[in-house]
Amino acid sequence: MRRSVRAVVASPLSRGAAPGTGTGTGPALTLNHHLRLRRRPAAWFHSTTATANTAGDRSEAAPSRPDVVTIADIEERRAKAGPLVAMTAAYSDSDMFKAPTTGKPKAKRWNHHLSSESTVREPCVLKQAAKHLKNPGLISLGGGLPCAEYFPFESLSMRVPNPPAFSEAATRTDGIDVRIGKYDVAEAAAEYDLSIALNYGQANGSAQLTRFVTEHTEMICNPPYADWRACLTVGSTAALEQALRMLCERERGDAVLTEEYSFSTALETAAPLGVKVFGVKMDKEGMLPGDLDAVLAGWDVRARGGARKPHVLYTVPSGQNPTGATQGKERRREIYEVARKHDLYIIEDEPYYFLQMEPYYGEGKTKMGKEKKEEEGVDGFLRGLIPSLLSMDVDGRVLRMDSFSKVVVPGSRLGWITASEQMVERFIRHAEVCNQGPSGFSQVILHKLLDETWGHEGYIRWLMYLRAEYTKRRDVILAACEAHLPREVVSWNPPAAGMFHWLKVDHTLHLDAGTRSILEIEEDIFDRCIAKGVLVGRGSWFRAEKDTDPTEMFFRATFAAATPENMTEAIRRFGLAIRESYRMG
Amino acid sequence: MRRSVRAVVASPLSRGAAPGTGTGTGPALTLNHHLRLRRRPAAWFHSTTATANTAGDRSEAAPSRPDVVTIADIEERRAKAGPLVAMTAAYSDSDMFKAPTTGKPKAKRWNHHLSSESTVREPCVLKQAAKHLKNPGLISLGGGLPCAEYFPFESLSMRVPNPPAFSEAATRTDGIDVRIGKYDVAEAAAEYDLSIALNYGQANGSAQLTRFVTEHTEMICNPPYADWRACLTVGSTAALEQALRMLCERERGDAVLTEEYSFSTALETAAPLGVKVFGVKMDKEGMLPGDLDAVLAGWDVRARGGARKPHVLYTVPSGQNPTGATQGKERRREIYEVARKHDLYIIEDEPYYFLQMEPYYGEGKTKMGKEKKEEEGVDGFLRGLIPSLLSMDVDGRVLRMDSFSKVVVPGSRLGWITASEQMVERFIRHAEVCNQGPSGFSQVILHKLLDETWGHEGYIRWLMYLRAEYTKRRDVILAACEAHLPREVVSWNPPAAGMFHWLKVDHTLHLDAGTRSILEIEEDIFDRCIAKGVLVGRGSWFRAEKDTDPTEMFFRATFAAATPENMTEAIRRFGLAIRESYRMG
Repeated sequence: MRRSVRAVVASPLSRGAAPGTGTGTGPALTLNHHLRLRRRPAAWFHSTTATANTAGDRSEAAPSRPDVVTIADIEERRAKAGPLVAMTAAYSDSDMFKAPTTGKPKAKRWNHHLSSESTVREPCVLKQAAKHLKNPGLISLGGGLPCAEYFPFESLSMRVPNPPAFSEAATRTDGIDVRIGKYDVAEAAAEYDLSIALNYGQANGSAQLTRFVTEHTEMICNPPYADWRACLTVGSTAALEQALRMLCERERGDAVLTEEYSFSTALETAAPLGVKVFGVKMDKEGMLPGDLDAVLAGWDVRARGGARKPHVLYTVPSGQNPTGATQGKERRREIYEVARKHDLYIIEDEPYYFLQMEPYYGEGKTKMGKEKKEEEGVDGFLRGLIPSLLSMDVDGRVLRMDSFSKVVVPGSRLGWITASEQMVERFIRHAEVCNQGPSGFSQVILHKLLDETWGHEGYIRWLMYLRAEYTKRRDVILAACEAHLPREVVSWNPPAAGMFHWLKVDHTLHLDAGTRSILEIEEDIFDRCIAKGVLVGRGSWFRAEKDTDPTEMFFRATFAAATPENMTEAIRRFGLAIRESYRMG
Repeated sequence: MRRSVRAVVASPLSRGAAPGTGTGTGPALTLNHHLRLRRRPAAWFHSTTATANTAGDRSEAAPSRPDVVTIADIEERRAKAGPLVAMTAAYSDSDMFKAPTTGKPKAKRWNHHLSSESTVREPCVLKQAAKHLKNPGLISLGGGLPCAEYFPFESLSMRVPNPPAFSEAATRTDGIDVRIGKYDVAEAAAEYDLSIALNYGQANGSAQLTRFVTEHTEMICNPPYADWRACLTVGSTAALEQALRMLCERERGDAVLTEEYSFSTALETAAPLGVKVFGVKMDKEGMLPGDLDAVLAGWDVRARGGARKPHVLYTVPSGQNPTGATQGKERRREIYEVARKHDLYIIEDEPYYFLQMEPYYGEGKTKMGKEKKEEEGVDGFLRGLIPSLLSMDVDGRVLRMDSFSKVVVPGSRLGWITASEQMVERFIRHAEVCNQGPSGFSQVILHKLLDETWGHEGYIRWLMYLRAEYTKRRDVILAACEAHLPREVVSWNPPAAGMFHWLKVDHTLHLDAGTRSILEIEEDIFDRCIAKGVLVGRGSWFRAEKDTDPTEMFFRATFAAATPENMTEAIRRFGLAIRESYRMG
């Protein structure tokens, strides 16, 4: 019942070693040694994972999921491939780390959507010259890469949680101490070290971390076309800007569609580029496919101020910012079909994807308690995730943006995109002449944590822990809203993912509704909030079309940051500000 | 004789604390505690630095340099200011960390040079809302900043050199172990910690590292106008792209001037933006001011393919890439005056600024041996640096790009720019909606190393060590060239800074000179180099105007990376390739 992939799994080395990887002369890590480095306590390998050696025995017991790549598949593939050898500035391509994609179609080509800026990009001549580095015995006086001898870091160490004991308290007493040496690779002690990570690298990121995110993406999304690729980014804000410059052009009058309330920073990214943004109506599941179709079908360039019919859709399917709305599986399918109908290219922004929660049943309670959720296991968690747009992307028309900001640390400035080879190649050409890829400190630290220390299963368990924690936080803010807000004017849908709670305040019931605009009433409430000591987001900040008048009034509250006690107090203050503005006595 | 600044030195806090810094409730580090944290061994505080307490006593002994800010000045200013309190995502401005600029003129305004993209940029509404965070007792449900409780890093530690014992061997045995805790700030153990560095921050970088680079820039360049600012970047490649998008516009036919041979990645950054690049003739001191003036005075839009008379100059004054040329002080003054005459805005790219070397006197020898250089002391080193364009920038028409890539580690993806307030503000508005500033891992690690552990003096001593090391490497490659290259066809100038050696090969003496083009002969030599096992850069890769035919032939060799033995062998192979191509028997 398991997919046939396992029998023909490819070695990254057999697919052609990266230039400059020093294959043949590199350190020959043994598999045992490699596994020892992972430091995983055997005790928590119980429900769904097996080592490569025992995967075969376990496969009958696992549920049958023919389209799914499991952790066991990846472990087995790695075992067959042997250690990864990728030295300083080694070229790599995520395709080296994928299962064979036999039988899948190739992505469509998007030349007609590319901007002229993106179309004319050429590879960096100096990075191209690196291909000669694979010649045995060659001495390079080519690139201006400093010598690692002059890197003033002998080692880095870090204390991190020991799965599944993820809490701060447990980490303080029983965390794992992980050391990153300068020359671990030369000393055959690891696959990545400071001498490599802290030198220049390729703009698409290191082979070491690319392998991890490629396998992770395969496990989570398994795109249904052959030539998909992953590439590291310096975070999704940067990735969005790069994507917009790749797809849109001021002179062409290009426009982008998004949810009618959208992430303000995304709107602010598009505006200076001369890219006009238009909103699509939403309900509690986010963007309405019917309205998306209607907007496109009835597009009138003149009525839209000269904007060309949009060919790009920007959407946040899970825990949308600011509304907290989450598109269900059917909703996503419908949106994808409308995109196919109108030849839309989709930018799928999914920072909150893994913060999908169980339904809320009132009075601070979710359907499942934390204990039950931990029992569901890794497989259950993964099965429960709403499929991504990328996972249904038969055309290769989705550029998915993932980020470690919300699920590891924002300060890593590290994420990745997944899209067709054509689009990822164009994206990398831009990265080479702007950010040059993420910080090497961030890359080696995340590699050590996620790959070498936790492994895929440990990381998934971390995500399960996080989503349980955010669920508790959501339940706190919802209980506070039930207790402290005047339900006659404030209404909401319980968020099903993410970090944001979206509160509708009925402006028609305000005593000044006839004399003051919605924006004025919103400002009045906001000012009263500040005076009472609570900061919330004004709904108008997030409107896709700011040059039109709002017809409704909202506020955004995050349940990510404040302590439960402060969150409850903050909502109480928000309720007081509303009552005061509405003169509810 | 010392500047009067010290008497009226400003406290960063007295100039208005950063919003959200929690002033008043923050940890009250004592100065003693702060100094203890620096861990500086007292023994190497000898020649030019004093602690704040003794600075007054030392001032008479120091040489009189009225325009110079010294380490002692900075130490004293910090002591008066007290500990820096800057919490998560705290707003900061480099102006907080500068000496008063009384009597200096303000920079000119550059509105007429800005692109429309840059002109219309507005601040991020969510980052603006952070101003409310300074209200005492306010609870924020505003920004979607994750809670540090969910950062899976309890601590980071690193082993770094103990100045002045900078070598790898000394660091292994006697390095300093530095620990960065998650909540060091709350525990009053440091000014920066993981809970702050790993969360979202401001796009201009953390207050902690901004303070260091601002002070460092003041010490090195001390710009002669009042409203200069520094701002962290994700490296100079990214900074250059941001600067070009800020200053140039495809639709305006904008063009940039640079050295006739220029950094290929810079050329590749400009090209897709539709910015045309034109070259200025050079000699061994780099760009020729006379040619710069002539090119501008005789600009003919039609002859230049529709390009507008350039308003931007991009130059690498020290150890220029690829030619290794270094502009002397007078050369820089002349270039600056031409820029004033033609209203050019200057992008000064200085990654190799601190790798300025003593003159080379043949047979692998420099004027000063390493020992003598160490004796010169910090003051001597600083006095010996050629003044930067920024240091003579009375108009505020220079945007200087500094980088830690060549002098600390490239993998930090961290640098900074210095320019007038207007330009830095426009730059930050862009950074907010693209890279969002450098990695927090990079920032906190560099802060701990450069500021808390080494301090300004330790860092300058590190730079002195590096330049001595690179001088030795330069001397090796020059001796190898003298020994192994056929002087009848290969000629060069000893580089006076940087990492690159530029070799002119006289194509007119090639036996095929009449029948094959320069590019064909260059390719022939390059291919023979690869066959013999040496990679060098082809001069044609670096030509600013690639659509014209070259009239000379060059190769670029770096002395940064290979071991001395390999470098010598590589030059020997290069010599063989030349002889073979030239059929010199």
